[in-house]
Amino acid sequence: MWLKAIPLVALYASAVFAKPFIDEEPHCAGFDACHPVVQDGINVHLVPHSHDDVGWLQTVDQYFYQKVQYIISNVITYLQENPDRRFIQVETAYFHQWWKLQNNATKSQVIELINTGRLEIANGAWSMNDEAAVHYQSTTDQYTLGLRFLEDVLGKCARPKVGWQIDPFGHSREQASLLSQMGMDAFFFSRIDYREMKKRRAEKTMDLLWRGSANLGYDSNIFTSVLYDHYNAPPQFCFDVDCNDPPIVTDNQSAEYNWEERVQLFTSYIEAVAGCYPTNNILVTIGGDMKWRNAEKVFVNLDRLIEGFKKFKPQISGKNINLIYSTPACYTKAVRDYIVAKEIKLDVVTEDFFPYADGEKTVWAGYFTSRPTSKRLERFANNLHQVSKQVTALGGKPYGAVAKLSRALGVMQHHDAITGTEKTAVEKDYHRSIVTGMNEAIEEISDSFSSILGAPNPLNLTSCFLSNVSVCSESDSDQFNVLVYNPLARNASHYIQIPVRDGTWKVTDPTGEEIATQLTDTVRNLDYITNNTKQKILPKVLFFKAEYLPALGYRVYSFQRTDNVGVPVQEDPVSEDQIGFKDRYVNFNATTKLLKSITLNGLTLGVTQKLMFYRSAKDGSGAYIFRPDPDVSHAVEFGDPVTTVLVNDGDLVKEVRQVWRDWATQVVRVYKDEDFIEFDWMVGPINSTSATLYNLEDTIGKEVISQYSTDLTTNGVFYTDSNGREMIYRKKNYRPTYNYTDKAPQAGNYYPVNTKILVKDETYEFAVLTDRSEGGSSLASGEVELMLHRVCSNDDNRGVGEALNETEYNKPVVVRGSHFVTLGKSANGNGGRTMAAVERDIAQRKHLQPWVFYTAEDLAVKEQSFLNKELPPNVHLLTLESWGGGNSLLIRLEHILENDEDPNLSREVTVDLKDLFKTIKINSMVEYALAGITPLEESEKLSWPQVEDDTDPSSPLSRANKLARDPSDLKITLAPMQIRTFVADIEIQDGIRN
Amino acid sequence: MWLKAIPLVALYASAVFAKPFIDEEPHCAGFDACHPVVQDGINVHLVPHSHDDVGWLQTVDQYFYQKVQYIISNVITYLQENPDRRFIQVETAYFHQWWKLQNNATKSQVIELINTGRLEIANGAWSMNDEAAVHYQSTTDQYTLGLRFLEDVLGKCARPKVGWQIDPFGHSREQASLLSQMGMDAFFFSRIDYREMKKRRAEKTMDLLWRGSANLGYDSNIFTSVLYDHYNAPPQFCFDVDCNDPPIVTDNQSAEYNWEERVQLFTSYIEAVAGCYPTNNILVTIGGDMKWRNAEKVFVNLDRLIEGFKKFKPQISGKNINLIYSTPACYTKAVRDYIVAKEIKLDVVTEDFFPYADGEKTVWAGYFTSRPTSKRLERFANNLHQVSKQVTALGGKPYGAVAKLSRALGVMQHHDAITGTEKTAVEKDYHRSIVTGMNEAIEEISDSFSSILGAPNPLNLTSCFLSNVSVCSESDSDQFNVLVYNPLARNASHYIQIPVRDGTWKVTDPTGEEIATQLTDTVRNLDYITNNTKQKILPKVLFFKAEYLPALGYRVYSFQRTDNVGVPVQEDPVSEDQIGFKDRYVNFNATTKLLKSITLNGLTLGVTQKLMFYRSAKDGSGAYIFRPDPDVSHAVEFGDPVTTVLVNDGDLVKEVRQVWRDWATQVVRVYKDEDFIEFDWMVGPINSTSATLYNLEDTIGKEVISQYSTDLTTNGVFYTDSNGREMIYRKKNYRPTYNYTDKAPQAGNYYPVNTKILVKDETYEFAVLTDRSEGGSSLASGEVELMLHRVCSNDDNRGVGEALNETEYNKPVVVRGSHFVTLGKSANGNGGRTMAAVERDIAQRKHLQPWVFYTAEDLAVKEQSFLNKELPPNVHLLTLESWGGGNSLLIRLEHILENDEDPNLSREVTVDLKDLFKTIKINSMVEYALAGITPLEESEKLSWPQVEDDTDPSSPLSRANKLARDPSDLKITLAPMQIRTFVADIEIQDGIRN
Repeated sequence: MWLKAIPLVALYASAVFAKPFIDEEPHCAGFDACHPVVQDGINVHLVPHSHDDVGWLQTVDQYFYQKVQYIISNVITYLQENPDRRFIQVETAYFHQWWKLQNNATKSQVIELINTGRLEIANGAWSMNDEAAVHYQSTTDQYTLGLRFLEDVLGKCARPKVGWQIDPFGHSREQASLLSQMGMDAFFFSRIDYREMKKRRAEKTMDLLWRGSANLGYDSNIFTSVLYDHYNAPPQFCFDVDCNDPPIVTDNQSAEYNWEERVQLFTSYIEAVAGCYPTNNILVTIGGDMKWRNAEKVFVNLDRLIEGFKKFKPQISGKNINLIYSTPACYTKAVRDYIVAKEIKLDVVTEDFFPYADGEKTVWAGYFTSRPTSKRLERFANNLHQVSKQVTALGGKPYGAVAKLSRALGVMQHHDAITGTEKTAVEKDYHRSIVTGMNEAIEEISDSFSSILGAPNPLNLTSCFLSNVSVCSESDSDQFNVLVYNPLARNASHYIQIPVRDGTWKVTDPTGEEIATQLTDTVRNLDYITNNTKQKILPKVLFFKAEYLPALGYRVYSFQRTDNVGVPVQEDPVSEDQIGFKDRYVNFNATTKLLKSITLNGLTLGVTQKLMFYRSAKDGSGAYIFRPDPDVSHAVEFGDPVTTVLVNDGDLVKEVRQVWRDWATQVVRVYKDEDFIEFDWMVGPINSTSATLYNLEDTIGKEVISQYSTDLTTNGVFYTDSNGREMIYRKKNYRPTYNYTDKAPQAGNYYPVNTKILVKDETYEFAVLTDRSEGGSSLASGEVELMLHRVCSNDDNRGVGEALNETEYNKPVVVRGSHFVTLGKSANGNGGRTMAAVERDIAQRKHLQPWVFYTAEDLAVKEQSFLNKELPPNVHLLTLESWGGGNSLLIRLEHILENDEDPNLSREVTVDLKDLFKTIKINSMVEYALAGITPLEESEKLSWPQVEDDTDPSSPLSRANKLARDPSDLKITLAPMQIRTFVADIEIQDGIRN
Repeated sequence: MWLKAIPLVALYASAVFAKPFIDEEPHCAGFDACHPVVQDGINVHLVPHSHDDVGWLQTVDQYFYQKVQYIISNVITYLQENPDRRFIQVETAYFHQWWKLQNNATKSQVIELINTGRLEIANGAWSMNDEAAVHYQSTTDQYTLGLRFLEDVLGKCARPKVGWQIDPFGHSREQASLLSQMGMDAFFFSRIDYREMKKRRAEKTMDLLWRGSANLGYDSNIFTSVLYDHYNAPPQFCFDVDCNDPPIVTDNQSAEYNWEERVQLFTSYIEAVAGCYPTNNILVTIGGDMKWRNAEKVFVNLDRLIEGFKKFKPQISGKNINLIYSTPACYTKAVRDYIVAKEIKLDVVTEDFFPYADGEKTVWAGYFTSRPTSKRLERFANNLHQVSKQVTALGGKPYGAVAKLSRALGVMQHHDAITGTEKTAVEKDYHRSIVTGMNEAIEEISDSFSSILGAPNPLNLTSCFLSNVSVCSESDSDQFNVLVYNPLARNASHYIQIPVRDGTWKVTDPTGEEIATQLTDTVRNLDYITNNTKQKILPKVLFFKAEYLPALGYRVYSFQRTDNVGVPVQEDPVSEDQIGFKDRYVNFNATTKLLKSITLNGLTLGVTQKLMFYRSAKDGSGAYIFRPDPDVSHAVEFGDPVTTVLVNDGDLVKEVRQVWRDWATQVVRVYKDEDFIEFDWMVGPINSTSATLYNLEDTIGKEVISQYSTDLTTNGVFYTDSNGREMIYRKKNYRPTYNYTDKAPQAGNYYPVNTKILVKDETYEFAVLTDRSEGGSSLASGEVELMLHRVCSNDDNRGVGEALNETEYNKPVVVRGSHFVTLGKSANGNGGRTMAAVERDIAQRKHLQPWVFYTAEDLAVKEQSFLNKELPPNVHLLTLESWGGGNSLLIRLEHILENDEDPNLSREVTVDLKDLFKTIKINSMVEYALAGITPLEESEKLSWPQVEDDTDPSSPLSRANKLARDPSDLKITLAPMQIRTFVADIEIQDGIRN
């Protein structure tokens, strides 16, 4: 029996927004709304758009209330005055804010404009996300959030057909892949390397085909168009309030008459653009940052321009010009039809567009690292976001229960948020929103747990967001309970650190058995927090291992202080000594006190590591750009000898503290049975002028790196991940798509590292996994470096207008983070796995860590999994969230290995979701395109001659195969790297309540 | 039989604009559209408006196409989104331009907004005219032009109820009178002397009653409201695109939430304003220069502000605040109702509001003279405008035949045009438009004459606009005809000067008889014209007297050069000699060479006269402000002795040339039988740096005056005209309405002189009549001074942003003009008339001079009047123009004397229009309010307790009497200073064609 996909709007009556305006089955004009194009002449697609940054120089609300609310209203109003006019609406965070303020009449008008194709949604995500510093899970979520809202209030005609990423500073292959998986027909952007831009213009390859994945074939291919010259209107044709362009005057009695002259000027522009594209179509954006504040002004002039082209009929090389209002979707359709008709082959790209340089000296690689606290906060909040979506779904809450956090994270993906390229005041507002959302999420989780467990009194779960700086009022007690929730769909062990009072502690598991713990000192240099706030720093950290936490489940531990007096922590200098456990340890050089080697996974590899820094060039680095002093051809040593001290020598974990400067330190941590070594670094305040303690306090910008040098011979080759999914081959001073010229020796070789960077030779592999996005490179054979933190003394003139120097309590901020370093034989890592599989496992456990809740209540059921079985190690429950009013779930399953990464785990894998959940019965599942909005059977992508589906019809990547699936069949097969998205019709059951 | 007034829209099917949208008898919401006011609380009338200067920093078209077109469209659009919203549209020059660009749907929407009172016309004139430098005829015309257009396209609901003169730099009593006569209920403005403003605020007399005329009683009284503080929105409540005010944020979840705080801030503002007005109503303007470019933004915030007042209910002294969208008309109605209910007496004003000072040192008296060429061009063009309206009406042309000139002159009345306070580039554009209009008018006149005269071949009448600088290609010939047209409705004689070639000339009148002529040299210092252009200067000027030109008629003169050799002009130095004719002459002082006495009208009066100048203070004078160096307590002598030379000694006219400097000269001219002495002055280039010839070329601003000192003892009392109509008493260092503080000894005593300034003692009177508006004063007993020309070295910081220094051919411009000086016994002037009557006669003959046309054709009828009889000397045919398609005329008759000016001529006078015109038969005449738009029977003014009609019901000033008139009764009685306006139903007859 086939279960036809039910429109969301009908299914989810309890969604946050009432939808009284939507025709159940509206007729969408689709491509029929496109103005006719010609085969012989030149089609000029005028695309009106406003680029409304979701925060940058102002906060989201400041922009919205000062500008965007009027832009959208104005455009909606003036679209209606001439049915020929078109506009694309992009940022759904703003559209959502706007929609809330409108009356029913306006809402109906908007729906009518959408249905008739006069208003088109492009991108449609909550924000226009960055592509360098984002994680694919967050990207997927923020598209889903935006598109779901649009579907709820506007209906299916609003579904975007194109990715519109016109401002992000470089472009990731994973973004292309995700857009294609969402069913998008095209991907538009503008920022590519200046050398590549020149080449593409000359070779007419500004339109191209991008293969977004090395694994997914058809599912990830997407037509891609590079805008001619950013996204503004052509010079003198902006017309908006602050443009002061000459208005088009059609009255030839006026001294200001300029109609024909203006048509000719526009024709010259068209001529320049038309020479760079492979078909007879060009796209001309009419808009810009916060533009269209006077929609009437722009539309009236465009109307007159179009009328002028009809009247004066200018030509280019004997060809007529067909000037039309258009949209990116209409442009795509016109290009595709021309390609099919003329049998044109598009250029094919298989790599990505990083790093972006807009000139010889200006490589936008600084923002890979800028504002590392923001980049970490986003990961931390995403961790909670996933936990909260899972728990509220399990608790039967409706869609949107943790909307504040979802929205704050949607905003945080924005290309001036996660990038760190916003003003500091705006960063603070992002953080405020996220923390507000996290607090709401904690409450919702608490409530859901109460419901799931049928707790007689409402549980009051809480969390300590500042436990990484040992601030936690919940654990500032002699007795408390910790509920550790594991968001992975498989059992997982995890070392957990709890800030505690000094003394002797007894920790018991649900069986009442005492477990091993280890007490250590809190990290140093936190005095600036206590000096400036009333926050209390707990003096000790208690380590314990949460072993085999239940898949999608929890375990409760009880903490009790048994004695006020603890064992004093001994600090011993480290010489040649080997620190660690019998099968995993590190060695330090007796002279330099630096790391000398790492032994792990049955292998000892010579590895030295140190913190260093770059000095910024004069007029060099800023929030966007990384430009070290060209007179210093490498990173700078701190100069003084490092001090290296063993600070924690127990049975679970051993810690060595290394100090380069008081503001540049790290703890090297070896766990008893983890297959990585943790480098827990802390950097800052850089260039503080308020304490002589922190020297090197000149005013020159500094960008601190951690540099790992191994014995491997790698010849400049290294690998970085693309948004946390597939790995991409990198080679020093080389680009696959254009001739590289070595003008920026360091920055030109920097790439975004979202979760992992590695070097390898034929046998061995050395990988560093990060806890946030960082810039990284390999500038010498066997070497890996990652940029941790940066303070810039000057603005880099890309608009933000502030030197990058986030302060807290009047000092440059201090940043703490971790590298998880692993190594081994590439083909045969620990436990019969390849190193790739090992790294995937670590990455996932670090990305979705068990979340620690505190509770005073004594839970009756102290441990359980919400699954009846754990998922295989190569299958990830990427998404589990409520999709309706308790009878619908959004489920995404993902194969987390690439082809050929592991002989076993890279195989296709099938999971059966029947009886998977303990408390949820799945009746059926309909497969959707990635965003969960468009049922696969409604997802009709344009066919492109070069991207036709070439997968085996029986493969799980085959569209035919997917469509042939019976919705009641809950056995799902995944190919490597495949994500499959389902909306499940469910019943919540009482199974595990007590 | 009563003839009901027929709506214009029905009557004039051939008017320039088709009017398919107007309901024949629309229902006008009128005051019913006003939002309710409360009696107990404070009513705050928010009045949205945009102040759109008809040229200033940019030309009219530049403003229109860059800003105004969008403002009007935006407002129209967003008015429709909320029926509570209101807006007033003011400048009809712009509305007309905008209307032309709209489609029928928009036009219909506008009419609906007008009919429902959501869009209200305020003022409605073509421009917001200046009040200091304008002539009442031009003011009347420009209101008529604007209101006629509005009536044609919008219908009767568009008729404005208020004068809205919020920017002009001081206010004339005549303006109040004219507005009242148009049927306006109120007059709003903002610029009054800073001392008076302070006093009025303190005394709560910012609302007042103004008696606009000393003669007209009820007809001229008008409620007047002074805006609290100019016309902008309150600080932080502008909201438009370039205001950057905090938007009102009503979402209390937002970090930007400020709703209540913003309501409180606005309440503080209301509290300050409410203390200055006599009723419980205050008017708050929301707008400003070129504001409302984003109407949506402003309206949305005002909506929220109003909603906020309802929600938070702030109070002032226990009173509730009723914040409403409103209009000036609704404000007026609310004030009036409150006054009636509470029996409040308003302050009564009988004087005017000149000069305007916004600070101790900044008296806006410079613009009374600034750009004297513009001020003269306007008068010159008005002269032609009246001629062309008359002739085209007589020729049966439809309304609007000379629309270009009408519109250009309508624009020229604008308070940054005739004032000379615009940028020089904008001045050039005003002149260009006027000259374009004049050329069209000449063509239309030519055509009309052909039609009236039934000429077998079209006549080709032409004019020489530059004959005052002896440029005239038409008279650069040995033979030509001159047609002199007299636009007065009475016979008039006039001395005419024609630039000609040198030689001996024979001039014959229509009877073929040779008339007396006199040849003289062209004025000097015109070399800069020939040096810079190809224009040819004719070397001689031929004087002749056109004697008793037919009333509203013409006479043709034939010119023939009979010999190439003329009589050389002798130049003789003048000593004590008496120059002139037996009963009228001037004497010069043998030592100083200056004027010593004038003998005229049977009286010899000691009069010295000289050109002098003021030096500007540092940071002193500019286009607006007159501020001479305070260290020099009087005007400065040129220093060198004047040279005084007799240059023309004939039978018609005698001329003496006086030279102070090469750039400061004059010709004193005595005519054989004129009752004035002409002072033909020429000033400039001031401060030219390009010729050593013109010394005193420092960079200090100079303002040149002509100073007349008489023997009269006048004690600081003098009289100036108000816009060319009634005379107003002035006294040095005195103001009737507030305590004068002497901070600006000269400027503080300057007043606008439109046509006349005089001093008198108990017996004698000395008057100077001007050919344009000038600033003038009497700073010493018996003295009169007039400012002729000014060049300022600095901008005076009132917005124009340019130092006043108009250049032509790279030198400061040269200005030529005339003073007509007369004197006599006050009570018994020439011909049994008082001096007042003599002056009225001269003023009228100079204002509407006979117009000289050139023609090559030989007209069959060389002389005729278009009237069967001339009008009495105290009756002026103020307006004669076609009002429809050849079957309707607009006629205005005016009594040109004030009460008590002349024992005979100041009496009521009756004229019979039956058979008045030779070629036109008047069937009936319906009386209208002054602008010719509203039939008197439809003109319902609000009644005010203090201005109820107190005239004798049988008087021609009585409304009852006027309404009782039978339209077929063509006998019209006029009281002193009364203007009566009629629309006449006519038939054009063939009477005088030949």
